[in-house]
Amino acid sequence: MMTEEPPGTETRDVLLEFSMTPLGPGPSVGPYVARSLDIIDRSGLPYRLNPMGTVLEGTWDEALGVLAACFARMRQDCERISVSVRIDYRQGRSGRLETKIASVEKTLGRKLRT
Amino acid sequence: MMTEEPPGTETRDVLLEFSMTPLGPGPSVGPYVARSLDIIDRSGLPYRLNPMGTVLEGTWDEALGVLAACFARMRQDCERISVSVRIDYRQGRSGRLETKIASVEKTLGRKLRT
Amino acid sequence: MMTEEPPGTETRDVLLEFSMTPLGPGPSVGPYVARSLDIIDRSGLPYRLNPMGTVLEGTWDEALGVLAACFARMRQDCERISVSVRIDYRQGRSGRLETKIASVEKTLGRKLRT
Amino acid sequence: MMTEEPPGTETRDVLLEFSMTPLGPGPSVGPYVARSLDIIDRSGLPYRLNPMGTVLEGTWDEALGVLAACFARMRQDCERISVSVRIDYRQGRSGRLETKIASVEKTLGRKLRT
Repeated sequence: MMTEEPPGTETRDVLLEFSMTPLGPGPSVGPYVARSLDIIDRSGLPYRLNPMGTVLEGTWDEALGVLAACFARMRQDCERISVSVRIDYRQGRSGRLETKIASVEKTLGRKLRT
Repeated sequence: MMTEEPPGTETRDVLLEFSMTPLGPGPSVGPYVARSLDIIDRSGLPYRLNPMGTVLEGTWDEALGVLAACFARMRQDCERISVSVRIDYRQGRSGRLETKIASVEKTLGRKLRT
Repeated sequence: MMTEEPPGTETRDVLLEFSMTPLGPGPSVGPYVARSLDIIDRSGLPYRLNPMGTVLEGTWDEALGVLAACFARMRQDCERISVSVRIDYRQGRSGRLETKIASVEKTLGRKLRT
Repeated sequence: MMTEEPPGTETRDVLLEFSMTPLGPGPSVGPYVARSLDIIDRSGLPYRLNPMGTVLEGTWDEALGVLAACFARMRQDCERISVSVRIDYRQGRSGRLETKIASVEKTLGRKLRT
């Protein structure tokens, strides 16, 4: 599937949440996180920031590419880095950044905190 | 520290994000997720749902208590369950469900997608 | 189920892997990890240490109890702590600390690096 | 650093632990896990299998390359896949598949279960 379609038309079937933290600078890592968010925000990929990480929606290559770009930037001035990643792939489904939450709310019949 | 303060005044210094999924029902697990969200929403703890999990804010006991309640419910009718949890504890800090995102936005000088 | 059996006979149906790291002391966190391993090793629960975390086998309460004990110790002198946990529950199955690996090796028909 | 050295001499400064599971086949996913381990074992990268995942040691590109290969194989016949990854990068350090455990044992002054 990844090679049968022309560029730009591949389904964004991957949700990837990640958190990337340097060990060493001390307990406040905000500036390093902000730098990653700048990369993510400029990537053009759909994303959502939450208090524990950022969720990207893309193809495997798109999502892992943004992850690699954030890592390449952080390794420039951090000697130890901890990364946590979770991926939810679902064949042929895109737009899940919004539909997964909407589906839970519909099942429960009420709005949730998002 | 957890026993030196009267009930209800302990700092909610824990952010806990989790995702809990049954293996077995098939690729669609929405109804099981909705059941967990019902427990979370009724717990009274501050929380935020995102496309990959739910972030709770509480004391260690509060946050782990909600996790245990969701697990106790799911094990009633699921023979295999996969749980992923990440915890960010910061001494003396509460309200981070909102301040962590605000801090990143302030550093970058612009709004992000949340 | 968790209350129907006499103490000591409940199935150890939970595998819990965790990693607990202080943010602040700098890039070397070995002494803090060693302290957690001391708690784990003395807990009496079956466990295996690997290069990225420790896998415990127990009931939900046993496994989460060891996690809480490690956290209670670390919060005494660390102002920020990051914890990552993954749980694999399977109804009625114990001994999986060894059977899961053996099963993969049997399927492949050769030994793997463990 | 990743382009300044000739092939084969770059430091294997990344430890990557991952677990990759199809949602859909039911509660038993052993055959799919075995297939991934076959890919890992043939990759030539140092690795260790544990009851909750596999830890690879490599450069960023090597480790993420094996992850991508396992995913490419699994997506061929699984419509939904859940992946969990944790990365520990430490500048200039290799051989940590063994040194991290040895260091903890040395600090404690006794052998642990591995």
